[in-house]
Amino acid sequence: MERDLRTAAVNLDAMRVFGIDCGTEVTGYGVVETDDARREPRLVCKAKGAIRLAKAKPLPVRLEQVFAELSVQLERWQPDAVAIEEVFYSVNAKSALKLGQVRGVALLAAARAGIPVAEYAPLKIKSSVVGYGLAGKGQVQFMVARLLGLDALPEPPDVADALAIAICHIHVAQTLVLQESPR
Amino acid sequence: MERDLRTAAVNLDAMRVFGIDCGTEVTGYGVVETDDARREPRLVCKAKGAIRLAKAKPLPVRLEQVFAELSVQLERWQPDAVAIEEVFYSVNAKSALKLGQVRGVALLAAARAGIPVAEYAPLKIKSSVVGYGLAGKGQVQFMVARLLGLDALPEPPDVADALAIAICHIHVAQTLVLQESPR
Repeated sequence: MERDLRTAAVNLDAMRVFGIDCGTEVTGYGVVETDDARREPRLVCKAKGAIRLAKAKPLPVRLEQVFAELSVQLERWQPDAVAIEEVFYSVNAKSALKLGQVRGVALLAAARAGIPVAEYAPLKIKSSVVGYGLAGKGQVQFMVARLLGLDALPEPPDVADALAIAICHIHVAQTLVLQESPR
Repeated sequence: MERDLRTAAVNLDAMRVFGIDCGTEVTGYGVVETDDARREPRLVCKAKGAIRLAKAKPLPVRLEQVFAELSVQLERWQPDAVAIEEVFYSVNAKSALKLGQVRGVALLAAARAGIPVAEYAPLKIKSSVVGYGLAGKGQVQFMVARLLGLDALPEPPDVADALAIAICHIHVAQTLVLQESPR
């Protein structure tokens, strides 16, 4: 049974992905779009930013700041998907709890906006943009800038990571389409 | 300089506290109120409940369920404070992350409702209701039922824990008032 390639390919027409890199101090986000349905579509960065948390404020207020900012951006960009990093369990329990709190409100923002969430392991994300799972922050920044045709490296690195997560999701979606197409 | 005891005591007139016991499977909540400003005010349980998360649903949807239910209850009960457990770092990183995600949306619900949040260590909570920091779940359930004049033990234990956290906050507030009163 042959699948209709056009139907599958439609999903890549101007597919827009919102990547989030959660952090206890800085949460980066980035919006990446494919601008056509070629086999190697051009990737475009539509928006990017970093939400810096004021340490002096109480935790609930800081979490609301992340939630509010992400909600505004999701509403503005109406992405097809939110992509987020699966968590690294090598961190200690205290850090994991703190990160979990931020991650919880980020996932909630996606759920409230009605946008599906995809999770990717850090190795998968890095190898998707750098071709090498153990790449350093600098390499990720460099490759993200190159893939998106940016004039400067995305700063802080959290923003580059968020863009990398979005790119990873697009690459995975493209791979799925290619697998479904006739040889 | 003598403080006006009446002013301080006013805070205990019908003080209403919303306790939350966050969990990855069940999140308990309970509303406890003091019904007068006596030195040992009667404590009343106004509401209690457990939010059970459907394991089959995606994480963002489960987090939204917790957020939505807590937001409805906070709106309904308009508590003076939300009391929540400080986290136990003896859990492993994976559990801490999962718990953190739920805790993040619980804190967000409080922030969005404009209600201040107080955190208490597990030992403090247990010793506040049982007089013994290493009390077991059963002892907490028993003492919470006794302090609130409930006919049955609060079930599941998460609900008893949430009520215990609320009671702990009231006890701390009462202690502060007593410390400020003339000897």
